[in-house]
Amino acid sequence: MKKIITVSREFGSGGRTIAKKLAERLGYKYYDKELVEQVALESGFDAAFIAEHSEFAPKKSGLGFLFTAESGSPLTGGMSTADFLWCVQREVILKLAEGEPCVIVGRCADYILKDRPDALHVFIHAPLAYRIDHVLTHYGQSDVAPEVRLEDKGKRRSRYYRRYTGREWGMSENYNISLDTSLMSIDRCVDIIEEMVKQ
Amino acid sequence: MKKIITVSREFGSGGRTIAKKLAERLGYKYYDKELVEQVALESGFDAAFIAEHSEFAPKKSGLGFLFTAESGSPLTGGMSTADFLWCVQREVILKLAEGEPCVIVGRCADYILKDRPDALHVFIHAPLAYRIDHVLTHYGQSDVAPEVRLEDKGKRRSRYYRRYTGREWGMSENYNISLDTSLMSIDRCVDIIEEMVKQ
Repeated sequence: MKKIITVSREFGSGGRTIAKKLAERLGYKYYDKELVEQVALESGFDAAFIAEHSEFAPKKSGLGFLFTAESGSPLTGGMSTADFLWCVQREVILKLAEGEPCVIVGRCADYILKDRPDALHVFIHAPLAYRIDHVLTHYGQSDVAPEVRLEDKGKRRSRYYRRYTGREWGMSENYNISLDTSLMSIDRCVDIIEEMVKQ
Repeated sequence: MKKIITVSREFGSGGRTIAKKLAERLGYKYYDKELVEQVALESGFDAAFIAEHSEFAPKKSGLGFLFTAESGSPLTGGMSTADFLWCVQREVILKLAEGEPCVIVGRCADYILKDRPDALHVFIHAPLAYRIDHVLTHYGQSDVAPEVRLEDKGKRRSRYYRRYTGREWGMSENYNISLDTSLMSIDRCVDIIEEMVKQ
């Protein structure tokens, strides 16, 4: 029986829904935004700021970003804010893993907990067309076209992951199972993962 | 119902066994070494030579390889032998996909058939320790330590794949499902894939 499940997902693939259902079925704690709040509490930073910087590399917007998460600050002992947040987030995830059984969404938890034999690592993805449809249905229209939003999120997430883990985001070998949700119902995905958890 | 299944696998992960069982259960044709024979027939090259060069980049062994698969030849119209074999193999795979339902192991078939909506793409992997054990059990000892053999095969396969597809070998998004065989029995892996085929 696996005690910890990390769920990494492409934006719009339904990965979060799968993670939530899995936690409900297993009676495990569920950490997604809850994790951000914990990091906010421990770092003193604002939750919205953390949500933006705890999984994504900064947008490339000229000199602006030199003065935000990438620059050192007296608050963080000269460390860049992004590096400081990484350290706090890593500590929070390691601590959570020591506690009750849980499902953790994103935030490089697959890497941070890679050496725990009681952890199962899941990757959820889907083709772009499916994800565009999913985003429009669940999050509605925005000023930015969905394919642009998806591409931007994906690239920044990969960049963040590479920077802090040295690995390539989405490589099969980093997960025990990777599933394309466009071919199966969400519930069947949950079934399959649940079975692996219980092995 | 998917008509074609491509199975890509890490050496020693049990992927070939899964592919074979899947073909038996579904009553599909099975192409692995059979594919090499077909390429041999169509290219005029020796099957052993093809097996060595149809999935792996050449060993880096000094100037030697300049005069083997990487060099142009009058037999292949000046094209390098490796490129020529790629072209023949690609044609063979495209032709097989037009025929009876089948399971194809390796050989970049996931890439070659990526645009067919009737194809399901599977990636089978396992942690190194598991694969070492599998290799020793199924293939026995050899002069080269199993971890060296596995690493060499993996690197050459990735290099070959990158060269001819422009993609990274083993990225989850290139497959509909990726499974770590160390956590489940071979038969359960086959069950899960079979269910996806029948969706």
